[in-house]
Amino acid sequence: MLSDSILRELELVMARAAEAFEVYRTLSVRHRSALLYAIAQEIDHLGDALIQTAHRETNLDTARLRSERSRMLFQFRSYADATVAGTWMDLSIHTAIADHNPPRPDLRKRMVPLGPVVVFGASNFPFAYATAGGDTAAALAAGCTVIVKAHPAHPLTAHMLAGAIEKAIEKCDLPAGVFAQMEGADFELGKKLVQHPTVRAVAFTGSFAGGKQLFDWAQQRICPIPVFAEMGSVNPVYLMPRKLETAASEMALQFARSITSGAGQFCTKPGLLIGLESDALTQFTHDLGKAIRKVQTMPLLHEGIAESYARLREEALMHEAVHLVAESDEAFAAPEGRAGIPTLATTDGATFLSHPGLQEEIFGPFSLIVHCKSLEQVMSIAQKLEGQLTGTLLATEEDLKEAHFLISILEHQCGRLILNGVPTGVEVCKSMQHGGPFPASTDSRFTAVGSDGIKRFARAVCYQNWSPSLLPDELKNENPLNMGRWVNDVWTRDAVK
Amino acid sequence: MLSDSILRELELVMARAAEAFEVYRTLSVRHRSALLYAIAQEIDHLGDALIQTAHRETNLDTARLRSERSRMLFQFRSYADATVAGTWMDLSIHTAIADHNPPRPDLRKRMVPLGPVVVFGASNFPFAYATAGGDTAAALAAGCTVIVKAHPAHPLTAHMLAGAIEKAIEKCDLPAGVFAQMEGADFELGKKLVQHPTVRAVAFTGSFAGGKQLFDWAQQRICPIPVFAEMGSVNPVYLMPRKLETAASEMALQFARSITSGAGQFCTKPGLLIGLESDALTQFTHDLGKAIRKVQTMPLLHEGIAESYARLREEALMHEAVHLVAESDEAFAAPEGRAGIPTLATTDGATFLSHPGLQEEIFGPFSLIVHCKSLEQVMSIAQKLEGQLTGTLLATEEDLKEAHFLISILEHQCGRLILNGVPTGVEVCKSMQHGGPFPASTDSRFTAVGSDGIKRFARAVCYQNWSPSLLPDELKNENPLNMGRWVNDVWTRDAVK
Repeated sequence: MLSDSILRELELVMARAAEAFEVYRTLSVRHRSALLYAIAQEIDHLGDALIQTAHRETNLDTARLRSERSRMLFQFRSYADATVAGTWMDLSIHTAIADHNPPRPDLRKRMVPLGPVVVFGASNFPFAYATAGGDTAAALAAGCTVIVKAHPAHPLTAHMLAGAIEKAIEKCDLPAGVFAQMEGADFELGKKLVQHPTVRAVAFTGSFAGGKQLFDWAQQRICPIPVFAEMGSVNPVYLMPRKLETAASEMALQFARSITSGAGQFCTKPGLLIGLESDALTQFTHDLGKAIRKVQTMPLLHEGIAESYARLREEALMHEAVHLVAESDEAFAAPEGRAGIPTLATTDGATFLSHPGLQEEIFGPFSLIVHCKSLEQVMSIAQKLEGQLTGTLLATEEDLKEAHFLISILEHQCGRLILNGVPTGVEVCKSMQHGGPFPASTDSRFTAVGSDGIKRFARAVCYQNWSPSLLPDELKNENPLNMGRWVNDVWTRDAVK
Repeated sequence: MLSDSILRELELVMARAAEAFEVYRTLSVRHRSALLYAIAQEIDHLGDALIQTAHRETNLDTARLRSERSRMLFQFRSYADATVAGTWMDLSIHTAIADHNPPRPDLRKRMVPLGPVVVFGASNFPFAYATAGGDTAAALAAGCTVIVKAHPAHPLTAHMLAGAIEKAIEKCDLPAGVFAQMEGADFELGKKLVQHPTVRAVAFTGSFAGGKQLFDWAQQRICPIPVFAEMGSVNPVYLMPRKLETAASEMALQFARSITSGAGQFCTKPGLLIGLESDALTQFTHDLGKAIRKVQTMPLLHEGIAESYARLREEALMHEAVHLVAESDEAFAAPEGRAGIPTLATTDGATFLSHPGLQEEIFGPFSLIVHCKSLEQVMSIAQKLEGQLTGTLLATEEDLKEAHFLISILEHQCGRLILNGVPTGVEVCKSMQHGGPFPASTDSRFTAVGSDGIKRFARAVCYQNWSPSLLPDELKNENPLNMGRWVNDVWTRDAVK
């Protein structure tokens, strides 16, 4: 049960978010962009104290945290630039044609923000996907106000970042309600946030159970709202024979890093490797195991994740047809109960096919390598997998000729396809797609990374026969914002004549 | 309960749709475009027999049906052109940068089809929003296979159109399962269709109760799927004082046509007019009533609609503070129980505000005009309304200066804003937005009309470090399809160097 004071705070936060939205949504894209830049600057000003705080709260090493901070700042700045460029708005103008039958009116379309957005911060990205992460940046870029539910695993980090955002809002002379953060680990708080009538969209990064619950609450509202829950996946990797023959050792090293970096706590961690029984696969398995053995055992983000990792790892290894290939030899002073032991296990194709539980994600530095009897068995496994964020092929050009059917399955199952690389490392740009068919995410039509993620929080409005004096700047004849637009189906920055 | 034979048919249809999808989704946009053109041609070949059949089944007059047929054909042809132009795919390429930290891989994004789509035909548009309507055309353009649940109100029309589509598929040498139609009025059939695991999206045009039910079924699936239900609205019209002073009679005639055309059976029919008490409003009400009186009483589409119209009209008029302004003087030989009497009623702002039921859509030639005491009361009403497909302002430039707050409400509440025009008449082009915040539609981020509607049935896939030989044509360096693409954030048709 939530306390009365939390409930009062919630109502206050929502009232402010709704009120601020009425102001914020009318501001120009330049104002929004200025806010995003100001937030990046205020976060920069937090300096090393932010890194140290996050390090204490998450166990993530400071080098990783510094690089994640750069990503967070880049997201604010690049989404700010995208807002001003306006590409994501897909602006379109059709001018009137009087002698059509019936006459065509003047029609102009732009995007408007959905309304206040609730963002659930992730524990594994205390910077890039939490309080001041990509969802917050994208929602603010779209013109929405934001209410963050801070992740309880890093409260001080969340508090510092919220403070920076609030300072930026004040410096930009915007209503304080443009952003708010609520703290508290209570399950009920999440429910109240998603069900509050003021809220118009929800963004979440985390577990399937968490994301699906938010989705269900949101769809059961009187007025259902979109939920962008990015819930992770096992990110299958297909190991084709010729590629393994030529590059087993090199690939094994790359994948050992990809499986264990950040203690395997990435939604794109390759948790499932699938190959054809062969000497090359045996060699690759051996090399990967050897590399995994040398990786230090790291502390996981929090006790919940550590407990779940230990349990799921144990369950997998207890399975009679699943064998341990290697686990870390390198102990490390992990806080009690938080150790995440890097682990590689193996099984055969028939076992994998008959035990659907083996395709479930084990969040942490664990990967399962499946040795298949035939390409048909590989295909059967591919067809049985659920929606995925990514799918990876290790293959030579020669291999690819035999893998057409596999590629076709992956295209239908994944959000991103990788050839001869690792799925971890998600570039922030317009060409990125981070989000895949359910259960990888709840809305495969949108991306959680890259400037196109702004589209999640906006919808189109068409202005018909609208007065030139009233048209928003994006749609005025003169094109005062110098945005690219479709004018009578031709893309141009020119003014409308 | 569904019969065993229907259940067997359903499984067969689904198996074929899934199988055909595996072929159809791999075909180039040119193949899809060719299919859409072939369908238009086969429908054209149905000639006048189609018009006469639809006329008998729907009571819609032949002039209207001819114009709706043109619209249906234009949809197929223009979505075919859009498919080939590729604009809707928002293609984006970022080339590799080796000296980034970390190095940026080559990333290329295009859209792929979601999978088999179930389309529920509407009764009020036997051509443009039914078997061969905009949803079917958009889903086929996206690369999806389609299963139509024919509307039971016009079975022969639906059958003829399905036949034309099947013939086109055969001529194009595509698998028959690209399209199927199921007939039957049973509620359970709709449920089975939406819940079938093969289905990946649902499109619907019709009542709120129907659309919301499909939405709920789809969200309760183990694997939830998107539902694009376009459920109509009252389409509020705000009558500003100066405009009425200068153009009351002219506007009254325009709106009498808009309210009663197609017997008021349009989702964009203006069902609610809101103005400030004044002599001009009295004059407008009088003129509109006079025009409504002269409109013939027409037969409605089917008995269900006619019964519901008669009941809701009666309920509104029984309300003690709602007064009949005018109803049609012109009798017409409508089939028994199908008459839809053109009707204008009026009430005051306070009554409207205290009776939320009055904002519900009455599907048919009915409109309610609300006389308000003050601009504040107009604003209060505007704020109380739910999501709408359209919002219309009748206003002079002078009026607009006082209406800023009202415009701001409409931008947040509607999909399309119209100035000094009528909301009926929905142009098929990229600048159109047909779909508004819930409950007008279940997904305000997409449009049901215009080539952007293709986006409903597709999702993005990113190809990372992909082999040039394997890249889909849309993303190849040479740009063989001559599509506009974003290359390193610059829009161009040039080849990638």
